[in-house]
Amino acid sequence: MSDLPPHGLNATEAAQKIREGWLTSVELVTSCIERIEQTEGQLKAWVHLDKELALAQAKELDDNRMRGRPMGSLHGIPVGLKDIIDTKNLPTERGTKIFKGRQPDTDATIVNRLHEEGAVILGKTVTTELAFMHAAETANPHNPAHSPGGSSSGSAAAVAGFHVPLAIGTQTNGSVIRPASFCGTFGLKPSRGIISRTGILQTSNSLDQVGVFGRSLEDVALLSDAIGCHDPLDEKSYSRHRPHMMEGVSKEVEIEPDLAWFDLPFADRLSQDSKDGFEEVISALGERVTRIEAPANFTGLVETQRIIHEYEICMHQAEVFENHFDKISTTLKPTIERGRQISKDEYEYALDVMKQTERFLGEFFLDYDAIITPSSTGKAPLLGDGTGDPIFCTLWTLAGLPAANLPLMVGSNGLPIGVQLVAGYEEDDRLLRTANWLLTELQ
Amino acid sequence: MSDLPPHGLNATEAAQKIREGWLTSVELVTSCIERIEQTEGQLKAWVHLDKELALAQAKELDDNRMRGRPMGSLHGIPVGLKDIIDTKNLPTERGTKIFKGRQPDTDATIVNRLHEEGAVILGKTVTTELAFMHAAETANPHNPAHSPGGSSSGSAAAVAGFHVPLAIGTQTNGSVIRPASFCGTFGLKPSRGIISRTGILQTSNSLDQVGVFGRSLEDVALLSDAIGCHDPLDEKSYSRHRPHMMEGVSKEVEIEPDLAWFDLPFADRLSQDSKDGFEEVISALGERVTRIEAPANFTGLVETQRIIHEYEICMHQAEVFENHFDKISTTLKPTIERGRQISKDEYEYALDVMKQTERFLGEFFLDYDAIITPSSTGKAPLLGDGTGDPIFCTLWTLAGLPAANLPLMVGSNGLPIGVQLVAGYEEDDRLLRTANWLLTELQ
Repeated sequence: MSDLPPHGLNATEAAQKIREGWLTSVELVTSCIERIEQTEGQLKAWVHLDKELALAQAKELDDNRMRGRPMGSLHGIPVGLKDIIDTKNLPTERGTKIFKGRQPDTDATIVNRLHEEGAVILGKTVTTELAFMHAAETANPHNPAHSPGGSSSGSAAAVAGFHVPLAIGTQTNGSVIRPASFCGTFGLKPSRGIISRTGILQTSNSLDQVGVFGRSLEDVALLSDAIGCHDPLDEKSYSRHRPHMMEGVSKEVEIEPDLAWFDLPFADRLSQDSKDGFEEVISALGERVTRIEAPANFTGLVETQRIIHEYEICMHQAEVFENHFDKISTTLKPTIERGRQISKDEYEYALDVMKQTERFLGEFFLDYDAIITPSSTGKAPLLGDGTGDPIFCTLWTLAGLPAANLPLMVGSNGLPIGVQLVAGYEEDDRLLRTANWLLTELQ
Repeated sequence: MSDLPPHGLNATEAAQKIREGWLTSVELVTSCIERIEQTEGQLKAWVHLDKELALAQAKELDDNRMRGRPMGSLHGIPVGLKDIIDTKNLPTERGTKIFKGRQPDTDATIVNRLHEEGAVILGKTVTTELAFMHAAETANPHNPAHSPGGSSSGSAAAVAGFHVPLAIGTQTNGSVIRPASFCGTFGLKPSRGIISRTGILQTSNSLDQVGVFGRSLEDVALLSDAIGCHDPLDEKSYSRHRPHMMEGVSKEVEIEPDLAWFDLPFADRLSQDSKDGFEEVISALGERVTRIEAPANFTGLVETQRIIHEYEICMHQAEVFENHFDKISTTLKPTIERGRQISKDEYEYALDVMKQTERFLGEFFLDYDAIITPSSTGKAPLLGDGTGDPIFCTLWTLAGLPAANLPLMVGSNGLPIGVQLVAGYEEDDRLLRTANWLLTELQ
């Protein structure tokens, strides 16, 4: 056994050690809690943490192992949950005082899945207000003067800060890939419909998607496989068979993949060090990357995402916005006011455009294995300057495509900058296979 | 490839051929339909069969494979469903004219699971009236003058008659293990709580359990793994990790198992050829079997099961019994009248006894790998003489233990007689490992 403290282990490594008896879940959870106690004062990644409850779960899982009971793929592994995911044993306050003390009666579907796979729910991580853009207090583990990004701020920071090997977030625009990029972790946002959203705050039925954070590609695959399932209560969930993520990571590529790089109309938003970094990456990959002028309508799609997101959040959260408008941040208020002005026709037209985009991008991946693109406009902004610009995630989230952040670059001030890979719909395994190849090529 | 027509293949074999491209789902489903058309006139195993719908599902699955989409463990394999399991694309009439033409809006949870694993829902199989004891028209595939058993009559007959490689039934007393025994198929009734019952006719919340039929031990393991999942809508479903059945079948036993044979107080109900057969089996197994005098209260437990079953069916189906009593068979009517007389105290006492039984049998399996016991009182009764006596299943169903029928013996007139193995709660993998060992020992 290595001398690494248990909280330093990746989930895949820790799960194997627990299965084989080299490590107990109680030891791992204890180590994570110690790490949290040492650094949480600065990081502020957690909003609810019940040590006794976490240790009791760990103890029960250790006992089950001793009794020879079956073990799931996450047996004994602690996981952090963005505080918009309902848990019946911990409050779920959704990053706003409107829901202060809110304690749901039931677990979200993915929480049940986590229990089924033997995970320990370590606690709830900080989310921005209602999973939107108003920055919370969480700091970037690489430099506490900077933001971890949002809206899954605490999940990204907790994983990057070695508080917990795995955490779950959500993405309606760029709320998983962007914080993963800023915090230098792996992030995976699977195809729309793979992971259930029942019991998770609804901000946009069309766009909300669950994503995961981990410190290796295997780890994000492991967690996605564990929580993915059909859920008849979620209308975007499908009952076809889902891609097996872990198979994607462990499979060798048979022929070297073809990647596409879009020269995007909003490329000028990229920071200089990002631009330089990507030019280097593309040049290192040589013939494997084809540069493509982005279709003219790509800028319009950013507007399409905005219309759907704003219209739907006003629809789903109408009651909250009506009765608690005074408790809403000045960041979210203008969005609500704008959203309320969007007409039904305008919204339905946006949904049509979304469908066309899905079709266009569906055919696109007949020729390419993945799109390579920035995860964010650059390194993390300073705390107080917001959670960063999600624009490099918007199109792929709109089309429901699987996307991964690979923490491959470092910016001019030592902060991480991520590379994003995007693949065809429901081709998450191909995405991960390509990502694995890219990591080997570039490292 | 062998010359066996596709309908003759076991599910595990067919699934592999489909995955590898030697067989298409359309070919397999077509072959099953042809077989049904040839023999259904005599067998009467099916109540709803929509060939076009089945072939459309198969075609879609074949197309998905051609497009490189992920494939589930049952990709392309047709499955029959007892007609008390809700399907939104086929009627679910529950074996009674009371529900003639009933078409549910949603699929049962296990139907969603089947779709998720790529199965083709071939059709609905005959059930006795409301899954109770009033015999339906289905014949035994080994001799059409005999009963296939019940209540999962059509599911057992369809699998044994090579209509379909896999089928699903339910057991509240002996409705899976008994027909499997009579029809000479493998049957597996996993531990209570492993398979969801949401969307399945409720006859007894405490006792109802889902079970499966197949023509090999691998096949029943494959299907149980595919449909087992946590379901928060089913209060007996649990969110711990479940045993992996296929691992049980494929694992070698490390030390030869210890089996227990109970000299049961109702052993005189066994037919002579069954008695002789079991004496032979026990003697062949030598030291591996310990004969144990059954605890005195085992007869009382049969009464305990009856009280719970009758009380609960009257509670769950109160509305049906009240409004449609005239349409109820003379087999079921006396049960209802008896059930209505059971007092709440008597019922609650029976539930306490059930809990004590679970505890007693929980400790029992510290010393033994499995109980070996008859699946039924002997070979199948004649058509018109009912569906057979479930008494050799009653205790294990009451305790929620996993049980398997192994079609190992043949009675004096050539009809099959099954051997039942029962293991500890949630030790379904150990049950299957022991069953696999037993098959090798005795074959």
